[in-house]
Amino acid sequence: MRGLELREGNVALRTDLPVPEPAHGEALVRVLKAGICNTDLELCKGYYPFNGVLGHEFVGVVERGDAAWLGRRVVGEINAVCGRCVACRAGRRPHCLQRTVLGIVGRDGAFAEYLTLPQENLHAVPDAVTTDRATFVEPLAAALQIQEQVQIGSDARVLVIGEGKLGQLVAQTLALTGCQLVVVGRHERKLAMLSARGIATAREGEVEAGAFDVAVECTGNASGFAAARQALRARGTLVMKSTYVGSLPIDASAIVVDEITLIGSRCGPFRPALRALECGDIDVDGLVEARVDLARGVEAFARAGERGAMKILLDIGEE
Amino acid sequence: MRGLELREGNVALRTDLPVPEPAHGEALVRVLKAGICNTDLELCKGYYPFNGVLGHEFVGVVERGDAAWLGRRVVGEINAVCGRCVACRAGRRPHCLQRTVLGIVGRDGAFAEYLTLPQENLHAVPDAVTTDRATFVEPLAAALQIQEQVQIGSDARVLVIGEGKLGQLVAQTLALTGCQLVVVGRHERKLAMLSARGIATAREGEVEAGAFDVAVECTGNASGFAAARQALRARGTLVMKSTYVGSLPIDASAIVVDEITLIGSRCGPFRPALRALECGDIDVDGLVEARVDLARGVEAFARAGERGAMKILLDIGEE
Repeated sequence: MRGLELREGNVALRTDLPVPEPAHGEALVRVLKAGICNTDLELCKGYYPFNGVLGHEFVGVVERGDAAWLGRRVVGEINAVCGRCVACRAGRRPHCLQRTVLGIVGRDGAFAEYLTLPQENLHAVPDAVTTDRATFVEPLAAALQIQEQVQIGSDARVLVIGEGKLGQLVAQTLALTGCQLVVVGRHERKLAMLSARGIATAREGEVEAGAFDVAVECTGNASGFAAARQALRARGTLVMKSTYVGSLPIDASAIVVDEITLIGSRCGPFRPALRALECGDIDVDGLVEARVDLARGVEAFARAGERGAMKILLDIGEE
Repeated sequence: MRGLELREGNVALRTDLPVPEPAHGEALVRVLKAGICNTDLELCKGYYPFNGVLGHEFVGVVERGDAAWLGRRVVGEINAVCGRCVACRAGRRPHCLQRTVLGIVGRDGAFAEYLTLPQENLHAVPDAVTTDRATFVEPLAAALQIQEQVQIGSDARVLVIGEGKLGQLVAQTLALTGCQLVVVGRHERKLAMLSARGIATAREGEVEAGAFDVAVECTGNASGFAAARQALRARGTLVMKSTYVGSLPIDASAIVVDEITLIGSRCGPFRPALRALECGDIDVDGLVEARVDLARGVEAFARAGERGAMKILLDIGEE
């Protein structure tokens, strides 16, 4: 089969990959579409030592598996877990000590014609949600994870740093809470997308210091972190939502003096993400930069890595 | 009056300081005893640009103020607040935007014969609590602040990094919750003090990685932070309880992937601290390294700064 493989830091289109064999309890999924995420780009730069097929945002059709799943259009949670370790038993399944992670840790990913995942990871995509839109379920779930971790009241003042593809999803999910939301960014066009949805925006440097209860850092860089930190009031919460490369220097004393909470946030719940797309609460159409055939996957990667690029979707299989 | 003054990084005994004049609502307190804290030592190294009388852990007697306070033996909360700013009105009074902090920010401290504080900051010391013991109220309150910020269940696995004077108080307060507590340290004598109270101890490097729900960092150095981080399970909480000098490099990606919470922790509630001393729940007698007269204050500072030193109490006034 065809697939985009990362090998020693180089991404290449392979045409000779074997179709993966589903293990006990797993499904074989024929991939329809997949989205390129910043984590994929960081993996190429060596963020984590992964070799294999990249990709973890996908929609597919189950080709082998239990009868209930056959032929169904699905998305899938990316952490394949053991169910037996202390983390699984304590209810922290995404943190399973034995986990593999689709296209990230020890498991080939979605930028190929087929993938395998445990059937317990699958969620059927409602008919009302198009395949393009459903490719956003994984990052949308990650955005919703913030609200699993931090209580966002309707009177909370919340700042989102970054108006890229992740920041847009985070902002849209937070806006549903009715909180007092501001998104900080650099790109006029992307800020305008938020304004069009009634979300307040600001340029860097325009944000009042110490005025926010919660700041969500979606840029993955030190200046974004610094901006989030500066915007927080004492006892505020800084959510770290992005992929960070290398060491981040923090002013620990100021965090102690101001009693700031920092919280790392990763994968989130798929069910509410699907529901939000089904209800039309979240708009993802505007986030698509381009649709590119898997055959031009290397080029798609280059394009996804361009400054300011939004979501690149890979067309992989026919519905 | 006499007092230990920090001026451009040098601590000196002054004998010509004016007795401070209490502002409206403030009391004039004659200081009996005061404790030297690591923050005092860090202030001398330039941690924060403070010039003035040092000291914020004290017991004194009210000499001027409302009739109800006159002659009473008191301790005092160190943040003098405006009561009107957004932080005060939101119930975050220790984070008042206009605050002065006794011996730390904009207000002369307790290493002198007299100090002033707002009367609302004062707490009467019960007769059952000796003056020596009551000097520990401020750091004991800071230790109790952890439980104001993080719920510590009786089944929580909690690690304390550091067995110095702060770590000892933190460990003793956490032990009261019945949690599964381990304290990591280097000094046999200090670990033995904890063992004698039934608190489990370990040496650095002996701690199981990923095994703790909560880790409290009491050393203020990067290696202590790293040890705390390493000991935490996914979604665990790292409480930063110490004074950190300079920039602390953190592995932000690992914090995101493991969804770790970091929380800065500063001043705490005086009332339960006084109660714990009154009940005898907390032993502070063993934490006193030496009692030194204010006249030998510079020497006391040097001694407090020696590696492994426990609490140095300054004898300042007669009861």
